Formats: sequence, C-alpha cells, structure tokens
Amino acid sequence: MEWRQNVRRVEPYIPGEQPNKEGMIKLNTNECPYPPAPGVERLAKEFECGTLRLYPDPECKSLVNCLAEYYQVKPEQVFVGVGSDDVLAMCFLTFFNSDKPILFPDITYSFYDVWANLYRIPYKTCALDENFRIVPEDYKQQNGGIVIPNPNAPTGVLESLDVIEEILQANKDSVVIIDEAYVDFGGVSCQHLIEKYDNLLVVQTFSKSRAMAGCRIGFAIGNEEMIKYLNDVKFATNSYTMNRPSLELGVAAIRDEKYFEDTIVKIMCTRERVKEELSELGFTFPDSKTNFIFASHKTVPAAEIFKALKENNIFVRYWNKPRIDNYLRISIGTDEEMDKLLAFLREYLK
Amino acid sequence: MEWRQNVRRVEPYIPGEQPNKEGMIKLNTNECPYPPAPGVERLAKEFECGTLRLYPDPECKSLVNCLAEYYQVKPEQVFVGVGSDDVLAMCFLTFFNSDKPILFPDITYSFYDVWANLYRIPYKTCALDENFRIVPEDYKQQNGGIVIPNPNAPTGVLESLDVIEEILQANKDSVVIIDEAYVDFGGVSCQHLIEKYDNLLVVQTFSKSRAMAGCRIGFAIGNEEMIKYLNDVKFATNSYTMNRPSLELGVAAIRDEKYFEDTIVKIMCTRERVKEELSELGFTFPDSKTNFIFASHKTVPAAEIFKALKENNIFVRYWNKPRIDNYLRISIGTDEEMDKLLAFLREYLK
Repeated sequence: MEWRQNVRRVEPYIPGEQPNKEGMIKLNTNECPYPPAPGVERLAKEFECGTLRLYPDPECKSLVNCLAEYYQVKPEQVFVGVGSDDVLAMCFLTFFNSDKPILFPDITYSFYDVWANLYRIPYKTCALDENFRIVPEDYKQQNGGIVIPNPNAPTGVLESLDVIEEILQANKDSVVIIDEAYVDFGGVSCQHLIEKYDNLLVVQTFSKSRAMAGCRIGFAIGNEEMIKYLNDVKFATNSYTMNRPSLELGVAAIRDEKYFEDTIVKIMCTRERVKEELSELGFTFPDSKTNFIFASHKTVPAAEIFKALKENNIFVRYWNKPRIDNYLRISIGTDEEMDKLLAFLREYLK
Repeated sequence: MEWRQNVRRVEPYIPGEQPNKEGMIKLNTNECPYPPAPGVERLAKEFECGTLRLYPDPECKSLVNCLAEYYQVKPEQVFVGVGSDDVLAMCFLTFFNSDKPILFPDITYSFYDVWANLYRIPYKTCALDENFRIVPEDYKQQNGGIVIPNPNAPTGVLESLDVIEEILQANKDSVVIIDEAYVDFGGVSCQHLIEKYDNLLVVQTFSKSRAMAGCRIGFAIGNEEMIKYLNDVKFATNSYTMNRPSLELGVAAIRDEKYFEDTIVKIMCTRERVKEELSELGFTFPDSKTNFIFASHKTVPAAEIFKALKENNIFVRYWNKPRIDNYLRISIGTDEEMDKLLAFLREYLK
C-alpha cells in the first residue's frame, strides 16, 4: 500500500488564460470593463490595516445584512462565499448526495461536471436544442438534483421564468440550483420563487456586474433551512472564508446602486451595438442577455479567428468541444476595446 | 423521496467567540496582539482598486514565489489557501481517501474530526500521555493518513523533530501532515524533512505570527508531486481562492523579516513572564512554545475562572470536554493586556 493510491485524482477545471500583456484587449473571462463603484475605492483608502491581525467575522454579518436588505429577504436566507464557484462547490457537497444522477445542460458552465467528479456525484447532461435552448421535458426524469445557469454560459441564452418554474414544479423533491451569474445584464432573477419552492437556491456573483472578480464574492439566496445546511457545511470546512477586505469592499460595491445601474446599461448598450456589427460581418449568435456574445462565423472557422485575434493581442475564449467548436465567446469590453476588435475583424474577414 | 434526505448533515466546528466589546481584552483566538508589518499598510494604501474588476492570478504566483524564496524551496513545492483551515481541509479531501482510519491526537485542534466527518473519512484518535505528550508508538499502526499539530493546540506542547521523524519513518505509505500553525513561537519546523520523506506535508499560517488572521492566508510545503495533487483538487473546487488584496498584502507580510522577528520575540518574552506570574498564582501548565498558555489552577475550577474573566470583559477559551475541562487557553496579548489579566486573577484568586 502506497500513499499515492489514496490520492483523490481529478480532472481539474482549466480557467480562462489570464494573460497580462501590454496593450492587450482582454475579452476572455467576462470581467467587467469598468472599475468597481467609487465607494469601493473610498473604503479601500480608509481600510484600517491594524484590524488584519484579527479574524474576520465568521458569519459575515455586514455583507449578509447588506445583501438581505438589497434583495429584500431575511439575513438567514443569504449565504456568502469566495466567488460563486465557492458557493456552488459547497452547494454540490451539501445537497447532491443522492445515488441518482444530478442533471444539467450539455453545453454549460464547465465547472459543473468538474465538481460532480470531484465529489463523486453521478450526473447526466441534457442536450440543449439546436438553438441552444433548454428542453424542460428533459428535467422531468428521476434525479438527485438540478443545476441550471440562467442565462446560460457560454451561450448567453436567457430562459423565461416560465421555463424555470416548469422545471421547479416537476422537481419538488430535488434541490434545484439556478446559477444567475449573468442575470444582471438584462435577465430577470427567479429569486421571488424561493417563497414558493423550498428546494430552490439562487446563486449570484459580484465578479461580473459588480466588477469585483478580484475580490471573490458570490452568494446564494434560498429558504432559511437550506441556507442553514449550507452554513453548517461551510463551518465544517473553513469558518472564516471571507477575509476582511472582501467583507468591507463587498458592502461598498452593493451600496452604490446608481453606479451599478449605469455600468450595466453601458455594457448592454455596447453589447447591442456589437451584435449589429458582428451580424454585418457575417457572424451568427444566439441572442445574448449576458456580458458576452457567443458567435460563429458563416464561413471562417472559429479556431482560425481565435488564433488570429490572439496573435493580435486580442483574447477571447474558444473551446475545442463537441457542438461548440465553431464558436467564440467574446466578452463585452469598453466601446473602445470593442471597436478595436471589430476593426481587426473587418480587416481580417475582408 | 424528499430533498432533505440528500443533505450532507454535519456537526459544524464552533469557532471561538468573536466578541466586539469596548475595552475588552481578547485572548481567546490566538491572534497576534501587534499589527501586521508596516509594509502591509503601505501596500494597502497603494492598492489599485481598479484592478478588482479582474480575476486574481489563479496560480497565486507572487505569493507562492515569495514563500518559495523565503523558505528556500521551489515554487512547485508551495501551495497557498484561504487560511490553513482551507489548506488542511483540501489536504484531507485530497489525501485521506483510504478505508483505514486516519490518526491524530485525542487532544488537538478541534477541526480535524470535523473535516473527517464532513468528508466521511474514518478516523481514530491516539491519546496523549498524562503530560499531554504524543506517544510515537501509537502512530505505528495501520492507518489511512496522519495529522499532527506541532506545537499541539490547545496544549502548546512542542515535540522534538526526533519524535516527528520517528513517526515519519514508520509511515512511509501514508501521507503525514504536520500542522505547524504555531511553530514560529520558538518551535523548529520539520520543513527540511520534505527532502527525505515524499509523503510529508508541512502546513503553516499567516494568522498567528504574521498578524494576518483577517486576510486568511495559509500554505503547505511538500514535494512537487503532492503539491500538484493539491493544486489539482483546488482547481477542481475554485480556481481563484485567493483574492487580490490577500495576494498583495501577503507578499508584504513576508518581506519585512526584521519586523516579523521583533514581533515574535516580543510575544515570546511576554509569554515567559506570564508563565512565571501564572505559576506564582497557583496555575500549572505544560510548557508552551506557542502564543498561548494552556493553564489549570490548583484549586479553582477553570469553568469558574472563565466565567469570572468573561464578566470582566476578558475573553479566553474554555472547552467543556473530557481531559481538558479544567484548563483555560489564554492567548498572549500585549504586556498591558496581560498585566490587566494578571491583576484581575491576583484579586480574584485572593
């Protein structure tokens, strides 16, 4: 017997490249092109470093209360973690302990099968239709849980609340997680449905619409009982997951509602304009309600465009995977960044 | 079938109280009484909040390289996480996947059995002797892994490297984790033994000796293969565990070696003086090589002293558990804080 035999072997998730080149245009990880709310900077300047000697609040009360107030739920209905990845991983560990497979779309956030493999959770994927839409019927089979991103990534497709509710209606005995990482860019959250479905958890993040990817803050909203189970598992893993800077700056990122809304509108305006221009250049894409566009060119293979862009210091995301290997996921940057992308494509595709 | 049946039920770890009262003396969670290195404050002031919109470096290269240089190992031999709790939890998940029980002392860090329960890892505790010392023979039985804190908590007892090596020698087929959270306060690290034992992982933290509990930084040092397995599991859980403030301030906390050493010396001097005064007051305790003292009074029950201290706004730690229910764990604060504690005890025990 050798120690290597007891190692948990996993196929790790490969995050998008984090290139750091001068003058690069970084449209590959769906970050916000604008800085966080000015209040974040103000608070950072006032941050008292002496307090770092003390543990942070294990219950994260300041941030939890702030989110509860903002979303008009009770603090006992809010769970916070180190990005929505931490929150989702903890949800998988807490709720997906059945022998039956959990269900999620075949084309989706590439972390779901990684977590399932890590925690040895059986899973089954349900194929999106040819328009990358969810087929609700597929989620009416026996399962050990369901996770659906809405809007979906990397497709950008938003499903209506009717679809979500149809799935919830058929799955009252399973935990259903709706991953709303991108919902702020024109989607409608299903948060109000937590009153009606005690098995629904809604997960969101500060990394996209709140420009706080570097701070690592995500959260889940659900009924008090679910949130308690999640907190029990969190307190059995690491009592202090959120550090003091996160807790303080996170609150500041929520407080400034006007800045938040202005930023969202700017990104959506850019997105709509880029959609038109990409269409003119011969791209097709499902209608995006996110801060990225999942685009395929009518004649030029995505892999080639990806390579050409990269050589010109423009980074987008490409997966060499079945069904999506002719698509590029292009994050929405500033207008200036998108103009440079479009100018390059115009020239390249001529 | 109901969703509640698939919930992972756990007995969560209860962290030390985090009271926040005016004028309180907080000696209950082994925090450093002095602020982090001045470089931390300097860097915090210069921190560019605009960068928060971008994900942090998933490989944590700046901090990993800095630690590798400091401890004279290769960057590939260093793993960082959100406090040593995060690092240790990930080690349990990665390495303790045997049907045989893992071994750790009966009196020890109270998170070990919590992680074992969380991840359904069988475990067996080995009783410390009557002087709270490890009995190496106990660790020469079949096992699925070993975790030993050195110095131990909450006892404060340091074992010699000979004892550690005796255990390593007998367990070449198991992963052996030495949790050195308190080693900087007069202990000797077993880090150099990683060259000799490819199954040894040494875990340390920034929370005690580096006054960075509020930042949540811990790390493991081991051979490249083990660190790779750990990173694989980390990348299968959350690619970006360390946020930008942590990565930047963590480097600053390492850089200032003189401040670090001065702080340690100050704490150790206070500790030695407090030992003498506690002895004079009728306390007994194992000799501590940490930033706390685990003390029992000859005549007055610990529970009573604990209560009296609390009523007087002095917080120490007390466990109502077998073998240690007549002990108080008293963190080493500033000289002024300890004088107030001693003055109260002198009066109270009169």
